[in-house]
Amino acid sequence: VTILSGVQDGLTLGTPIALLVTNRDARPDEYAALTAIPRPSHADFTYAAKYGIRSQSGGGRASARETVGRVAAGAVAERMLACEGVTVTAWVSSVGEIETGAVDAATVTRDDVDRTAVRCPDPGAAARMEALIVQTRAEHDSLGGTVTCVCRGVPAGWGEPVFDKLDACLAQAMLSIPAVKGFEIGSGFAGTRLRGSQHNDAFCLRGGRLGTVTNRSGGVQGGIANGEPVIFRVAFKPVASIGRPQETVDYEGRPVCLETRGRHDPCVLPRAVPVVEAMAALVLADAALLQARMAFGRPAGPS
Amino acid sequence: VTILSGVQDGLTLGTPIALLVTNRDARPDEYAALTAIPRPSHADFTYAAKYGIRSQSGGGRASARETVGRVAAGAVAERMLACEGVTVTAWVSSVGEIETGAVDAATVTRDDVDRTAVRCPDPGAAARMEALIVQTRAEHDSLGGTVTCVCRGVPAGWGEPVFDKLDACLAQAMLSIPAVKGFEIGSGFAGTRLRGSQHNDAFCLRGGRLGTVTNRSGGVQGGIANGEPVIFRVAFKPVASIGRPQETVDYEGRPVCLETRGRHDPCVLPRAVPVVEAMAALVLADAALLQARMAFGRPAGPS
Amino acid sequence: VTILSGVQDGLTLGTPIALLVTNRDARPDEYAALTAIPRPSHADFTYAAKYGIRSQSGGGRASARETVGRVAAGAVAERMLACEGVTVTAWVSSVGEIETGAVDAATVTRDDVDRTAVRCPDPGAAARMEALIVQTRAEHDSLGGTVTCVCRGVPAGWGEPVFDKLDACLAQAMLSIPAVKGFEIGSGFAGTRLRGSQHNDAFCLRGGRLGTVTNRSGGVQGGIANGEPVIFRVAFKPVASIGRPQETVDYEGRPVCLETRGRHDPCVLPRAVPVVEAMAALVLADAALLQARMAFGRPAGPS
Amino acid sequence: VTILSGVQDGLTLGTPIALLVTNRDARPDEYAALTAIPRPSHADFTYAAKYGIRSQSGGGRASARETVGRVAAGAVAERMLACEGVTVTAWVSSVGEIETGAVDAATVTRDDVDRTAVRCPDPGAAARMEALIVQTRAEHDSLGGTVTCVCRGVPAGWGEPVFDKLDACLAQAMLSIPAVKGFEIGSGFAGTRLRGSQHNDAFCLRGGRLGTVTNRSGGVQGGIANGEPVIFRVAFKPVASIGRPQETVDYEGRPVCLETRGRHDPCVLPRAVPVVEAMAALVLADAALLQARMAFGRPAGPS
Repeated sequence: VTILSGVQDGLTLGTPIALLVTNRDARPDEYAALTAIPRPSHADFTYAAKYGIRSQSGGGRASARETVGRVAAGAVAERMLACEGVTVTAWVSSVGEIETGAVDAATVTRDDVDRTAVRCPDPGAAARMEALIVQTRAEHDSLGGTVTCVCRGVPAGWGEPVFDKLDACLAQAMLSIPAVKGFEIGSGFAGTRLRGSQHNDAFCLRGGRLGTVTNRSGGVQGGIANGEPVIFRVAFKPVASIGRPQETVDYEGRPVCLETRGRHDPCVLPRAVPVVEAMAALVLADAALLQARMAFGRPAGPS
Repeated sequence: VTILSGVQDGLTLGTPIALLVTNRDARPDEYAALTAIPRPSHADFTYAAKYGIRSQSGGGRASARETVGRVAAGAVAERMLACEGVTVTAWVSSVGEIETGAVDAATVTRDDVDRTAVRCPDPGAAARMEALIVQTRAEHDSLGGTVTCVCRGVPAGWGEPVFDKLDACLAQAMLSIPAVKGFEIGSGFAGTRLRGSQHNDAFCLRGGRLGTVTNRSGGVQGGIANGEPVIFRVAFKPVASIGRPQETVDYEGRPVCLETRGRHDPCVLPRAVPVVEAMAALVLADAALLQARMAFGRPAGPS
Repeated sequence: VTILSGVQDGLTLGTPIALLVTNRDARPDEYAALTAIPRPSHADFTYAAKYGIRSQSGGGRASARETVGRVAAGAVAERMLACEGVTVTAWVSSVGEIETGAVDAATVTRDDVDRTAVRCPDPGAAARMEALIVQTRAEHDSLGGTVTCVCRGVPAGWGEPVFDKLDACLAQAMLSIPAVKGFEIGSGFAGTRLRGSQHNDAFCLRGGRLGTVTNRSGGVQGGIANGEPVIFRVAFKPVASIGRPQETVDYEGRPVCLETRGRHDPCVLPRAVPVVEAMAALVLADAALLQARMAFGRPAGPS
Repeated sequence: VTILSGVQDGLTLGTPIALLVTNRDARPDEYAALTAIPRPSHADFTYAAKYGIRSQSGGGRASARETVGRVAAGAVAERMLACEGVTVTAWVSSVGEIETGAVDAATVTRDDVDRTAVRCPDPGAAARMEALIVQTRAEHDSLGGTVTCVCRGVPAGWGEPVFDKLDACLAQAMLSIPAVKGFEIGSGFAGTRLRGSQHNDAFCLRGGRLGTVTNRSGGVQGGIANGEPVIFRVAFKPVASIGRPQETVDYEGRPVCLETRGRHDPCVLPRAVPVVEAMAALVLADAALLQARMAFGRPAGPS
């Protein structure tokens, strides 16, 4: 990554930071065969429908390669958040039907996560995930899964009411990541099966301030952080690019059997972890800057 | 609702439409007891933490009463979308553990939905939901559930790439609704358990244009509508206001047993249906207006 | 004005403040004759060209009556600015060819301004302006003029670089006021005739911090406030509505002689003063909130 | 300029166009002496006040070098506008006290403008401007002046009501250019001295549609283009960097005599012409895209 502007001697100048990453490993000829055929569950067709023109170099802006910019920007956001004591940690919580055992969201660290190649802090589950990925690759097929993310140290008060709720902004950020099909915060979909008396997070006094005994809210109430860990889960569909032949049609509607090559990963989950972290950090940094406005006319700082 | 501006003789003037709904049924004295105690899983505490001041009239902006503005604005958006042949239909797909049987997303209508008091187009499930709601009310408890929404006729091409993907904007819109804890589009969380070869939506020729054989994408690929129905599901937590006593603490951290009164609905799902529809319509209308820019320099209209 | 939301017992709740002013004195029948004829130098024609429909009630959104909302919102902004010691004072600096004598921008107050009916703090000029307005009204004609505005106490640092410079935002705000045709800050157009050696504002030490000896910059350098008074001037064209007959054409292009009635003020300048002040206050309040972000991660407040 | 993205084989892809211009001629050592002294009427002091840190490489973002990005982006906007038959032409209308004679805004071309080194289409005035610039350079001093710009072919209807009026957006865009201190459209400040009966633009039938006999409105009424040429004038202060010694103070408030070197142009006016054109083109392209929304639900295109 090249820093084009905004930084001098390791300090930000208060002006936009432009980061440039050059794609040195493009192989457009691998995509040449795809000029006539929209890949199933890819964005080839929808970009063509929208713009009337398609990039010839693979997925164009719909390629997951664009996430490098998110991760680079997220690194800057994380430095900002660190000033406020906020940390963001994500991990692979499922691959296909394999789920992690218990992960303690209050203590899990990035080191714990990075200890396994699949970025799952439960070593047993990680081993099974890895085996499944190897097997699926051999079958020229692909896998989906989920990433769980916890943001600790988020001060009570971050997040805006009504339309730009903190969880709403996180949802948009996560759904903007390629291949994401779902988002849930706190108790999420499973919580819909509970009664209110089972689900409510009672308040308690903890460390001199109000906390909640449980955290089914996922750290957000009414769109505003309540000081508990913000915890959410993101669903990634199985990778659309597979080596197996697929019966589909070309842009003219003629039946074809598509066999793609190219470098396709059978499971993006491990690589999705830093993208989820980066997008969460960017949302939190935005919330922090908006909340800093509350400092207006007050003697003390934002938090 | 009073129309303050923007409409004349049934036609819009091209200028903002201001709609005013007066809350004629506020009962602030019912909330007087809550001045000292933040209600569990409500936004009382977070609003106080954010603003340092709280509205004395119940939930303030965190009250679900604010959704009346969403529904009123959504009605205008739906009129716009009707010009393009786009319809939006939502229904209650689960209450607690009771789920609807099969609902045909290709044909279900608002009349089908409104036929039962719980707004579930499956009469058998509707009857069981209703019985559960009655029973839960008697137990002074509350229920959660899910709403499913289908948007038919959305032209291929609506939705923006990268950050403002159509599904990302829908996710934000849905998570901005009070009590929502999750969003999934197409195959959603269940799709994470499939292989790519099972999940991909092959293309086919249908009615002279490209469609997809299946619709696990939920009508969106790469953030852009592909012309298939846009279908998604929204998770609502159980209502936080319950009649049962709750052990919690007051703003000073002193243990209290909270017994709330007020008019609390044990299940908001039926009333959430038009809110989900309205927010979906607003997102689609925004996408339509953005897409209309593509008409620039072209002889024909936006779709 | 009715306050619909956002205020409780004289304190803001941190949520949007909605203000409603009902137009109790609309006389649409006075405008009935104008259905077929676009008034010269009014917005009738352009609104029709843009929207394909026109409001039947006079100028619609192009009526200067919309400025009541600006003034009401500006009053809130001024309360915010008062916390930071910022004041905004405007006055009529010319009517037609009559200009004020010297007004001391460092000390002039709203009381000084409001002492004369034309809101000009120079009593001699005010008397001549008033006589000219009376005479012009008798001639069924109208006048233009200029308003000068000074914002004192603006802290060095307010304003954003490049596109949203403080003076650029003020320019937009002023040109958004009906009938405004020009904006200049500091030395403005007259300054274009000076040499750099005559124009530059040398720095000096004043009250323990850097100030400038002169203020040809008008308090802004590089788009950012420098701590000196922000001073600018706004040009208002003569009122377009006049009682004299005007040779023009109707919407069909047929020659007509237009004689308008209605209540038309021959000179809006005195009434434009609070509008200019309000818009300046709104721009400064926005700048203040943006600058408050700089408090992020710092122990002290925004200024 | 390097095109990083958004263009393929001479066609835009509908995605953002990133343009990179590398500053190959930075001479930071020329600015080393300025670390302790804020240059009068430069942004050194205000950037330091805002950010608490200053770029060491000259003006940083306040350097007029940033305008290269505006001109590059403006070139793209002009290509868009050409599809609608819109042209933008600016010229130097004054340098110091020397003004152009009559320039026919209805016919003047960029070729006419570029015929002289000072970009003034009146050859006599151009010669006098050039002589004045040469003389002023010899005196180590600098000059200001004005640029006039005409946008022809703007369709009636472009521009938004109330806050984002077309002229308001042009005013912001122009004031955002370094060294600009004023903006006026149509009759501008001079028009404030006329009576309404002298100033109003009567309508007439021209080429089958409504036009105006005169154009004191400068092509905009009520913030919306009326189909006449949009014509405005921009004031540039004399260049702040001069070779003459200046009595000022350093950041500590100590008196110093500042003698700057570096490559300083005594008059930026000729080089400001393409910047004014570029910013006007960007504003018009934005207005065009917003107006394209009006195509929604209509059979025909935007204009």
